[in-house]
Amino acid sequence: MRQNLQNTKLTLCCFYPHNGITMHRFFLPPECFGHDGITLPLEVVHQIIRVLRLKTGDRIIALDNSGFEYEAELISLEKDTASAAVIQKRRGKGEPEIEVTLYQSLLKADKFEFVLQKCVELGVSTFVPVLSERSVAGKPSANRLERWRKIIKEAAEQSGRSCLPDLMPTATFVEACSNASDPGIMLWEGEISTGLSQVLSQNKFRGTSHLSIFIGPEGSFSPNEIDLAKKMGLVTVSLGQRILRAETAGMAAVSVIIYALGGFTV
Amino acid sequence: MRQNLQNTKLTLCCFYPHNGITMHRFFLPPECFGHDGITLPLEVVHQIIRVLRLKTGDRIIALDNSGFEYEAELISLEKDTASAAVIQKRRGKGEPEIEVTLYQSLLKADKFEFVLQKCVELGVSTFVPVLSERSVAGKPSANRLERWRKIIKEAAEQSGRSCLPDLMPTATFVEACSNASDPGIMLWEGEISTGLSQVLSQNKFRGTSHLSIFIGPEGSFSPNEIDLAKKMGLVTVSLGQRILRAETAGMAAVSVIIYALGGFTV
Repeated sequence: MRQNLQNTKLTLCCFYPHNGITMHRFFLPPECFGHDGITLPLEVVHQIIRVLRLKTGDRIIALDNSGFEYEAELISLEKDTASAAVIQKRRGKGEPEIEVTLYQSLLKADKFEFVLQKCVELGVSTFVPVLSERSVAGKPSANRLERWRKIIKEAAEQSGRSCLPDLMPTATFVEACSNASDPGIMLWEGEISTGLSQVLSQNKFRGTSHLSIFIGPEGSFSPNEIDLAKKMGLVTVSLGQRILRAETAGMAAVSVIIYALGGFTV
Repeated sequence: MRQNLQNTKLTLCCFYPHNGITMHRFFLPPECFGHDGITLPLEVVHQIIRVLRLKTGDRIIALDNSGFEYEAELISLEKDTASAAVIQKRRGKGEPEIEVTLYQSLLKADKFEFVLQKCVELGVSTFVPVLSERSVAGKPSANRLERWRKIIKEAAEQSGRSCLPDLMPTATFVEACSNASDPGIMLWEGEISTGLSQVLSQNKFRGTSHLSIFIGPEGSFSPNEIDLAKKMGLVTVSLGQRILRAETAGMAAVSVIIYALGGFTV
């Protein structure tokens, strides 16, 4: 069985096509938005013509990463240039109210990419790859970071996000703990008394507008890392009695937290 | 990027190794459990010797699919036979209190396998593959079913389940709706007023010991299917404003539901 996260745009249908969201979405750089309308970059022109086979008169959603979305009609479409006229500018609905930063310890490449893709769909705002003591995977190369950014962008466009999630530079565990904003939780299998529901019902978490989540590598966090995290104010929590693979733990925790803090409301 | 769900036992470390759960676990047929101890089947003998390289004196957890687990010490280990003495029989902790049946519309093979693996980890009890109107994938072959059973068994052993989740025969959508026990929910992108939190706070759902969850194929349910499901008493719910891929929707919904109904408690 093979799962390829790249080039998935053509085959993956949208499961949740809300009004306006079935139109194809594109995050565009600021210089594309002008007084006269939107000029599409070459890469998007090619995608629109060769892959999506859109025609003049078809509509797209252009995104400037400000939280707004621009419903726009394609008015000219040539081999290497295309432009669109803005029909409506509106506030996007794709961002959860809670801003989640996921400090994900580096995992084997396919697992890490899986976490990125799924957690963009679920609503994570910022990803910080963390070099943990027991990370099997090393610091990502420039090529890999490029690939990760592409996965994030495609997942954000496909899932109807209004802002492009950030991929921060890889941090050491110490840097991650120092930089993480409060409140923060760390999923840890050794935590035997505190479950996620207990923590999320505390005022500090229930009322927060942002949350840091730390997820370990395949071999879990080291005792030193747990000590340091606790000293830095992170709350260690368990996801219960079953053993979750590292990449499942992240997705499950993000699903539950975004749900519990109101991010799945209709 | 490739993700291979088979043969993952060697490389995937347990993220959540609770006491006793770091021992390797094996679901065994009833005839293996005798008055004198446990006789291991050939396949497990080979795995223990060649792959896991266990030795006499090492302990394993044997599972008879009754909800109990048997901590057992390997007392003889030969090329084709092995036996173990039961040290302790105890009730397993790997089952959530809520019994979830997942009616998952057939997806492309890799996505369906992904859903099986992740949802076993999360605690689903029964899987029913459903032939929906818009399913791209057809009815699974005997070989594929065999492979799916293997994925379920490996995920159940790895994640510390005490009972082996069932894989039921593929059902048509009508059969699935008729057979599903009440209460049941159906994730549907067209539902614009009812969110998961509203539904899960109703008494009918909050106090239930079992729940049926319907998840659509890549192209979603058809209008006819939605009508039928509603007539049969299924409650349609939305997972919010973002568009989730079909395989993400299942995992996210199962995570949230099992959490909300107490299945992630420590």
